[in-house]
Amino acid sequence: MSNGLIVSISGPSGVGKGTVIAKLREMIPAFGQSISATSRAPRGAEKDGVEYYFKTKEEFEALIAEGEIIEYDVYVGNYYGTPLTPLITMSGKGQDVLLDLTVAGSLALKEKFDETVTIFLLPPTLKELRSRLTGRGTETEELVDKRMAQAKTEIASAPKFDYVVTNDDVDRAAEEIAAIVEAEHARYVRRSKEVDTLLAE
Amino acid sequence: MSNGLIVSISGPSGVGKGTVIAKLREMIPAFGQSISATSRAPRGAEKDGVEYYFKTKEEFEALIAEGEIIEYDVYVGNYYGTPLTPLITMSGKGQDVLLDLTVAGSLALKEKFDETVTIFLLPPTLKELRSRLTGRGTETEELVDKRMAQAKTEIASAPKFDYVVTNDDVDRAAEEIAAIVEAEHARYVRRSKEVDTLLAE
Repeated sequence: MSNGLIVSISGPSGVGKGTVIAKLREMIPAFGQSISATSRAPRGAEKDGVEYYFKTKEEFEALIAEGEIIEYDVYVGNYYGTPLTPLITMSGKGQDVLLDLTVAGSLALKEKFDETVTIFLLPPTLKELRSRLTGRGTETEELVDKRMAQAKTEIASAPKFDYVVTNDDVDRAAEEIAAIVEAEHARYVRRSKEVDTLLAE
Repeated sequence: MSNGLIVSISGPSGVGKGTVIAKLREMIPAFGQSISATSRAPRGAEKDGVEYYFKTKEEFEALIAEGEIIEYDVYVGNYYGTPLTPLITMSGKGQDVLLDLTVAGSLALKEKFDETVTIFLLPPTLKELRSRLTGRGTETEELVDKRMAQAKTEIASAPKFDYVVTNDDVDRAAEEIAAIVEAEHARYVRRSKEVDTLLAE
């Protein structure tokens, strides 16, 4: 059995990453989901390692310091982040994992775990991206300008990603990512055991 | 427009390479076919650069010496081989090309043109390969043994290939190769112009 893939998808705000990922999960239900760590207290029947990995604030900060948290956010005074080790454990069990990370998060993960497959989701045009951001109707002109500037900075990081997929159409983009997943499984580095087994017959 | 892919498929005798390639051409009719060079004289209405590139024996030998012929064979006293430059020209025009090469040919091409995508076609088991070779009914036990020994030597070269695809089922194997082709198009190195165009908007 070969290792599962860790596939990380990033892209600028407004590119439609959430929709493409939802479509992809529908197409490939076998994809594992990462469990976040948080410093907030468990609620009701929440169990450690199921809904979240529950940590104290001090534990969470120690994990950040160790480089164990790929990326994190602070929300209502609590940390929420993606821990590295459970991903590597899942991959070791042959489980593919699909991640929705920021551009910085994908690049940090790739640096820590070289086998990560990184995919950058691109808008068809910048004009289209602006129109999607404006179309939300919830953001001021000033905020849209800010997001567009950030998008350009992020797109300039695309060369550091393995693959670039244009989200011109959700189904097409998801299908292209599914092909990338299938192809990555067929790379020699991931099939070396099968070749060895065959030669040992 | 980005470069077309040069996809080269190899595998041991009996693995079913011809059948998988035929299926793949049916699935992706846009795939270009390489034109061989030969030292035999044109017959009837055959045109240079259509059926073959027609060369004199001396010209062909000069091409071999220049490293322009990826692999060649001698048949009834005439050379037949695959020239490199027309492939690179096709690729430069955005045309994908699918090649059926020997293991040595694929590796030589990869060395000359690093962007080549090399795929090794593997039998499900060595036992199955032997049974396919025996099943042809045209080969003596001794010849089958010889082919099996050669197959093992060739399979030991699989680590030098980009991808390894098991031909357990022709449709499945062809579909997996089609996914590899789709994924290779999405590699950042092949989409860098699109990213540049977007940023230049």
